[in-house]
Amino acid sequence: MDLSLESALARDASDALAPMRDKFSLPDGVIYLDGNSLGALPKHTDTCVQRTLNEEWGKELIRSWNNAGWVNLPLTVAAKIEPLIGAEPGTVVAADSTSVNLFKVLAAALARNGSRRVILTEQDNFPTDNYIAEGLIKMTGNRHDLVKIDRPEDVPAALNGDVAVLMLTHVNYRNGYRHNMAALTRAAHDAGALVIWDLAHSAGAMPVELANANVDFAVGCGYKYLNGGPGAPAFLYAAPRHQGAFQQPLSGWFAHSMPFAFSPDYVPATDISQYLCGTPPVLSMVALDAALELWADVDLAALREKSVALTDFFIKMVEQRCDGYGLRLITPNEPDLRGSQVSYTHPDGGYAIMAALINAGVIGDFRSPDILRFGFAPLYVSFADVWHAVDKMADILKNRSWDRPEFHARKTVT
Amino acid sequence: MDLSLESALARDASDALAPMRDKFSLPDGVIYLDGNSLGALPKHTDTCVQRTLNEEWGKELIRSWNNAGWVNLPLTVAAKIEPLIGAEPGTVVAADSTSVNLFKVLAAALARNGSRRVILTEQDNFPTDNYIAEGLIKMTGNRHDLVKIDRPEDVPAALNGDVAVLMLTHVNYRNGYRHNMAALTRAAHDAGALVIWDLAHSAGAMPVELANANVDFAVGCGYKYLNGGPGAPAFLYAAPRHQGAFQQPLSGWFAHSMPFAFSPDYVPATDISQYLCGTPPVLSMVALDAALELWADVDLAALREKSVALTDFFIKMVEQRCDGYGLRLITPNEPDLRGSQVSYTHPDGGYAIMAALINAGVIGDFRSPDILRFGFAPLYVSFADVWHAVDKMADILKNRSWDRPEFHARKTVT
Repeated sequence: MDLSLESALARDASDALAPMRDKFSLPDGVIYLDGNSLGALPKHTDTCVQRTLNEEWGKELIRSWNNAGWVNLPLTVAAKIEPLIGAEPGTVVAADSTSVNLFKVLAAALARNGSRRVILTEQDNFPTDNYIAEGLIKMTGNRHDLVKIDRPEDVPAALNGDVAVLMLTHVNYRNGYRHNMAALTRAAHDAGALVIWDLAHSAGAMPVELANANVDFAVGCGYKYLNGGPGAPAFLYAAPRHQGAFQQPLSGWFAHSMPFAFSPDYVPATDISQYLCGTPPVLSMVALDAALELWADVDLAALREKSVALTDFFIKMVEQRCDGYGLRLITPNEPDLRGSQVSYTHPDGGYAIMAALINAGVIGDFRSPDILRFGFAPLYVSFADVWHAVDKMADILKNRSWDRPEFHARKTVT
Repeated sequence: MDLSLESALARDASDALAPMRDKFSLPDGVIYLDGNSLGALPKHTDTCVQRTLNEEWGKELIRSWNNAGWVNLPLTVAAKIEPLIGAEPGTVVAADSTSVNLFKVLAAALARNGSRRVILTEQDNFPTDNYIAEGLIKMTGNRHDLVKIDRPEDVPAALNGDVAVLMLTHVNYRNGYRHNMAALTRAAHDAGALVIWDLAHSAGAMPVELANANVDFAVGCGYKYLNGGPGAPAFLYAAPRHQGAFQQPLSGWFAHSMPFAFSPDYVPATDISQYLCGTPPVLSMVALDAALELWADVDLAALREKSVALTDFFIKMVEQRCDGYGLRLITPNEPDLRGSQVSYTHPDGGYAIMAALINAGVIGDFRSPDILRFGFAPLYVSFADVWHAVDKMADILKNRSWDRPEFHARKTVT
């Protein structure tokens, strides 16, 4: 593979997605490889948020719940997410946080299949997903066990007759490992289990085929590859067969069949809005809505193709330029087995190398205890970005310029 | 009482809170009496939100979780709410929706006192609060009953030895009836029950004394009298004695003792952050933060005094000017028994009269089946507003100009 800057620039010149970069407001002098943690700011988000703030709220006040469509935002925003994850119309809501949404669908899944005892997941799943499962189990009297598998390849063998729910994250947040969603969903169904997928690191990074894979439930994040802004509302998917048949426990007024009747008794909506709870945070919802408009013309197959090419270019360049400095690739080399991120461990310099990189304008992030993560959002990361990022990292490693006190001093979040 | 426009203007001239109105962006030609549903837009919210959007997110990206303090927003925003509700430092979080927060504290209260069977509330409590209680009861295997009292004055007699939790809204959303928080909390404790108060219609409308009243838990709304914007994050109060002793079920990563350690096991925080769940919606949180800055110099006793004077002036003027047209006051005439709103029923014209009022620039709202609600946010409503509002309503009633097809046509939200 040609790993020259010229070849990177040539790839950018022929990249059909390259014009998308101009739709984002990216700071000068920064190579941003952390869109898997917080997506970049779309340029027109500001206009949309200001309109909501100053026109809809400031001038129209309460009337905007109707006239500006605020009341429908959980469904209208969701309708823009559905095609990105291969979901049927009317199967997604945008609401709450990923953790709260996971609580809803996990409770729903157990209500459907709760005579079995086990919730099966991975030890290395998103910690917050496993915390939520633990909280739910404790609250309902320890009638279920959270069984955590060590290695992803061992999941199928663990799908026995005790498993009520298989709860996995499609792409692992640490090492970027990607599960085979269709195969695992099939295996779980064959074993009589329901399936919940967390799409935090896949929605907006690749095509996802929930309906084709016959998935039961899914949740996902609005602020990573979807670029909805810090803490953007999350989303929730429930297959049509899991709508209307029972009640999820966070049964707030937006989940009522007639919220504005203010009826004293709860009558759950029979459509997907039954998975809502309270009043939506309109400003954050509008920012997510603005970001989702960018996806209207994006070819998801081309997106995945570019993602694979970017991560491959990065892995090959690191092999060539950073060999012998202690980095160990923990992301699968096989493209089918990874998402849109590449991770390395380093025996003693993980945090400091990332701090030195950030200081040099290359923003990735660090995850305890020793992981350097690089995310490649195909909408705005270029091949030239990849080239310059590795070039800077090679310099930092070669000169050991990361090994300074200021780069070792830890902050709360990285 | 002098009910002339001149007397209204004289009251405004001597009102110590009158200058606060200039801190809000209120549209011309509108008298806004719906701040109990959606508070008005503070003028400097726009600047704060734009800074977060374009500087913190756009330029600093992921680094703002640390450098701009996003990660601490649930606590720093809460610290501005604490003095408004008489809460001890470190007892409040700003997070999620009121409904989600109620689920957390109700689960917590039942974990503390769940050997008793009854959750006591009112038939006329906020519907969403009762829906949440029903959802929780169903999820945990119907081990508890939601008992709904018809008349607020009958609550004390229902506090028997079966009651685990007394769950009430301080000020009723329909008729504006205000409970005696201190007396009912004492009565509940005497009966061995814990107490949860919903402060949606009292926080920002009057002084609230949670610590002095020895309240166990409270929740409340950011988008009504606190002016945090549509769907603003809500808040949650847990008394120091209810922190650290057990685990609330929505145990997401922000409720972990060390969220950024990404530990595979859940170790609940022992402080108030244990009542958080997922990632906070930063844009909505910053708008709430901006609105809370306005309260720094507000004398809450003066706020309540003005609230009582405004509602009293309104009631007296309606008595004088609108008598004989079918309006029936359903809000207590005794100031101690009401919040900062005044409500009327009308036998056949409730919806249409409100629609005609809104058309004439007086914005209140309608609640099924027959209630006209008028909210008086003391920070920005003037005595002259009250005078003109009743003057317009008297005209509409006298001429029966509300009884037109366009005013009877219903929309989703009013």
